[in-house]
Amino acid sequence: LAHPGSNLTDTFKILIATDIHLGYLEKDAIRGNDSFNTLDEILKCAKTNQVDFILLGGDLFHENKPSRRCLHSCITMLRRYCMGDTPINFNILSDQTVNFNTTQFPWVNYQDENLNISIPAFSIHGNHDDPTGAEGLCALDLLSASGLVNHFGHSQSVERIEISPILMQKGNTKLALFGLGSIPDERLYRMFVNNQVTMLRPKEDQDEWFNLFTIHQNRSKHGPTNYIPEQFLDEFIDLVVWGHEHECLIAPTRNEQQLFYVTQPGSSVATSLSPGEAAKKHIGLLRVKGRKMNLQKIPLKTVRQFFIQDVVLDDQDHFTADTPQVTKKVEDLCYAKVTEMLDEAERERLGCPLTPEKPLIRLRVDYTGGFDTFNTSRFSQKFVDRVANPKDIIHFLRRREQKGDIKDEVNVDYGKLLKNTAVEGLRVEDLVKQYFEATEQTVQLSLLTEHGMGKAIQEFVDKDEKDAIEELITYQLEKTQRHLEARGVITEQDIDTEVRRFRDSKKNTTEEENEIKEAINRAKAHRLEHGNVPVDSDISNELALDSDEGSAPFAPPTRGRGRGGRGRGGRGRGRGELSYYLS
Amino acid sequence: LAHPGSNLTDTFKILIATDIHLGYLEKDAIRGNDSFNTLDEILKCAKTNQVDFILLGGDLFHENKPSRRCLHSCITMLRRYCMGDTPINFNILSDQTVNFNTTQFPWVNYQDENLNISIPAFSIHGNHDDPTGAEGLCALDLLSASGLVNHFGHSQSVERIEISPILMQKGNTKLALFGLGSIPDERLYRMFVNNQVTMLRPKEDQDEWFNLFTIHQNRSKHGPTNYIPEQFLDEFIDLVVWGHEHECLIAPTRNEQQLFYVTQPGSSVATSLSPGEAAKKHIGLLRVKGRKMNLQKIPLKTVRQFFIQDVVLDDQDHFTADTPQVTKKVEDLCYAKVTEMLDEAERERLGCPLTPEKPLIRLRVDYTGGFDTFNTSRFSQKFVDRVANPKDIIHFLRRREQKGDIKDEVNVDYGKLLKNTAVEGLRVEDLVKQYFEATEQTVQLSLLTEHGMGKAIQEFVDKDEKDAIEELITYQLEKTQRHLEARGVITEQDIDTEVRRFRDSKKNTTEEENEIKEAINRAKAHRLEHGNVPVDSDISNELALDSDEGSAPFAPPTRGRGRGGRGRGGRGRGRGELSYYLS
Repeated sequence: LAHPGSNLTDTFKILIATDIHLGYLEKDAIRGNDSFNTLDEILKCAKTNQVDFILLGGDLFHENKPSRRCLHSCITMLRRYCMGDTPINFNILSDQTVNFNTTQFPWVNYQDENLNISIPAFSIHGNHDDPTGAEGLCALDLLSASGLVNHFGHSQSVERIEISPILMQKGNTKLALFGLGSIPDERLYRMFVNNQVTMLRPKEDQDEWFNLFTIHQNRSKHGPTNYIPEQFLDEFIDLVVWGHEHECLIAPTRNEQQLFYVTQPGSSVATSLSPGEAAKKHIGLLRVKGRKMNLQKIPLKTVRQFFIQDVVLDDQDHFTADTPQVTKKVEDLCYAKVTEMLDEAERERLGCPLTPEKPLIRLRVDYTGGFDTFNTSRFSQKFVDRVANPKDIIHFLRRREQKGDIKDEVNVDYGKLLKNTAVEGLRVEDLVKQYFEATEQTVQLSLLTEHGMGKAIQEFVDKDEKDAIEELITYQLEKTQRHLEARGVITEQDIDTEVRRFRDSKKNTTEEENEIKEAINRAKAHRLEHGNVPVDSDISNELALDSDEGSAPFAPPTRGRGRGGRGRGGRGRGRGELSYYLS
Repeated sequence: LAHPGSNLTDTFKILIATDIHLGYLEKDAIRGNDSFNTLDEILKCAKTNQVDFILLGGDLFHENKPSRRCLHSCITMLRRYCMGDTPINFNILSDQTVNFNTTQFPWVNYQDENLNISIPAFSIHGNHDDPTGAEGLCALDLLSASGLVNHFGHSQSVERIEISPILMQKGNTKLALFGLGSIPDERLYRMFVNNQVTMLRPKEDQDEWFNLFTIHQNRSKHGPTNYIPEQFLDEFIDLVVWGHEHECLIAPTRNEQQLFYVTQPGSSVATSLSPGEAAKKHIGLLRVKGRKMNLQKIPLKTVRQFFIQDVVLDDQDHFTADTPQVTKKVEDLCYAKVTEMLDEAERERLGCPLTPEKPLIRLRVDYTGGFDTFNTSRFSQKFVDRVANPKDIIHFLRRREQKGDIKDEVNVDYGKLLKNTAVEGLRVEDLVKQYFEATEQTVQLSLLTEHGMGKAIQEFVDKDEKDAIEELITYQLEKTQRHLEARGVITEQDIDTEVRRFRDSKKNTTEEENEIKEAINRAKAHRLEHGNVPVDSDISNELALDSDEGSAPFAPPTRGRGRGGRGRGGRGRGRGELSYYLS
């Protein structure tokens, strides 16, 4: 098997990262520098690996209006790592005035005669650092204006979205880089359904292009229409880089329907203490040669460790709710669990001087069954020197079990939930909808007690802890399902009534759901009509099998397909001559 | 007489501007683009005149935290005008890590191997765009980090200030550029008095340097210690560029005591509707050759016209306070005056397409003597299509005349005045002090009526209308002095009591005043001791007489003094080898 990296002049080497959230918790005495340290690590890695370019998937900044210190650090780091004499070895063939439509310097920064760029960075905007104001500028545009980052994928039309790729060529390899800056999921969902999203492809040599698409949207199903199903994305795509989702699932997974791969690099800093953020964080080194690709994952060393564990008090052997001084025993148990995690953290940290000393620790304590909570501030005090989030270690959860309370509680809680949602509200509604959908299949469950819900809402008000809601509800689903299923507490009829009542108050009726399904099918048919024939076996064959350490295995043998390229590096503003047609 | 510009390789050509206040009123529908248009004009002028560098005297930004649009526009303009292939023809000989001590790239931007700078800009910070936060960063530092502006003059010590010049050489000409970023006037005043401010000079060839000092402080005496007297500044200085003061007094004036020249370019946009802002605005083209200099003033075309007039109703011939329907007559008079100014504006604007169509108009109406004000909103409506500040045209003032009210009024008004002051409070206190000082010489006067004071305070709360207070009080001084003097209303004794009472509540007693005077003398003696001998005749001889259009005349004949220079342009980071001693 030919190693895709062996012929360097034909292989694109791309540093893939996303959701850097620079400035997250920058005022925190312990965690304040985390996001900056990790961006530094990422840029250093790009430089060390002599990548052709860096690709960022949105949310480079945590705040829509980053602080001065944050901007200053970012500019300084980019200038330090991305400028220099290293030559650029690829060309851009597309119309750059279309590609870089948000700047008064509509050309890639490395072609600017006044800037000496060694590593161009390309980024779409996320939902945190999205464009605002009459001028439609986002924080990325300041970096663009300075010539440090190439901001692309900003669709300025509300009516329809036309995604025009940046066409790059390196030797024989042709890479089409598509990007779409974050758009509210509901809206984008409908636009896809209404056929308002188009990805443009070159007319000539269409099959010679490796198609890379960068997106910043919900990937997991938060509700029926509040995410972007992978099947909405065009089948001609080869690899999707999925931003916004913070869990690191960087090993490309294959969508068997669309026949493309999806990589979800995840964030480079944990912005909530939820399970998804606990997965070890990586960035990716993507190699593309011809139609073949290989993604090597690189663990991030500067990321603060995060351990999370669940404890169900009811399931413990050595005490019950009635045990004398059980609260003390519970506290001891928690102490032991936290200490256990700290010890594990310390062991893992051996030999990694870059990893911050104090880890993030979360212990989720399910105290259902007559247990009491205890005062966490005193508990936290014991760990203030060892844990990065001492005030936030323990998270109490409880499930309700009495049938009679359910309806009322549901009413009350809805009101509470929905009232506390702002623009982000869609997610909560959908989370709740999701829970109801889940119950259709099994049994209805109740929401949390005041205490738990109070905490959940409290967390929800903090936009970055929205995952907490999701976490709580999912947790509830899992636990209560088992309990109530076993006990046959609710009847199907009760559920239906509740569900119907709720759904009536929301947009999508079953009728609408069907409509949507039809629309999806129409869109698919349309694409097939226009010649985007999924060549199943071809695509799978064209992805190289690579057994590099840390890389993901793909489908077997390569099939080389080449064509003499122009190979012109250096400066000068090229204009693409390729024409497009709808995919 | 040799024209200083004739030998180009020896003559520094410097674009001088200050107080650009970018972003001032950026949301105003009419005036919103004014500051941006004028910065564009200034940069274009620098490029057209092929200057060696641009020197800015602070307050480049109006807001401490400029808006995204503001930063974006600034970066874009600087990149457009200040980058390019034009070679740099001068060297920097000083230790640049000292000069540029606020950046992680401590070298002048044009020496950065990764940036192609055609016109370096040097700027100190002002009081608007001053450093804040734990990191001590100001908006200028973002531009520095991007490599677009060289931020200098930021003294980071609180204890003492050491001003280390940027030493530049072009051919035979040696230019020492000193700068001090804005510091609260009271504090800087005391530091000068306590000998805590030092300007460093090169040991070798001391007399060969042309010394240019950029400062951003109060220049006019707002109070005994709330400004910087010119005599505090070292005598070895040749030219002071004085920022912060908005009135254009750009023609260099000679300080006969210190024997240096002072140029006050004034702001490039009016940030208050006060007389000082009405003076025609200019930037300067400074030429320095050897020890000779010449400043050519260049009128700014994009600046919105501003006309201001005073009307004293009591002094009008065709009506008195008792005339029937006098208020209507007053309104008609005002209408006529405003129309008059608009016509004048239109005439002046002929042939100047760059000048905005709607001028700023201010009519100050002294309605003392029994007149009533009228509703200005109806009045404004008539000019909404012709005036840029329709809601703000008329400004009513009135003087109190009864003796009995004075003391109470003074008490009340002080309280009001002082209560409404924030950090800027010093200026008001000093304005009031100034008024009392003035009264020592003539007679005491009362402050304005509630109406007038109410408006004054209203304006004062708007930080940019502080000049309004000054204006009102000065106005009062002028008018009331005449009245009360003529009527002998107050006795000297009354005045003394009031003054003493007021002064006792403030810091400076007469005792302290004397102390300060002594300190000034000590500082002076100290400087003389250390060899900074003012060579009166030499300095005046060394400043060229130039009869260029628009330039200011100076003292007669030149005296050439040269020395072979290094004349090395281009890149590379030089380190100065000159040592310093205290001036």
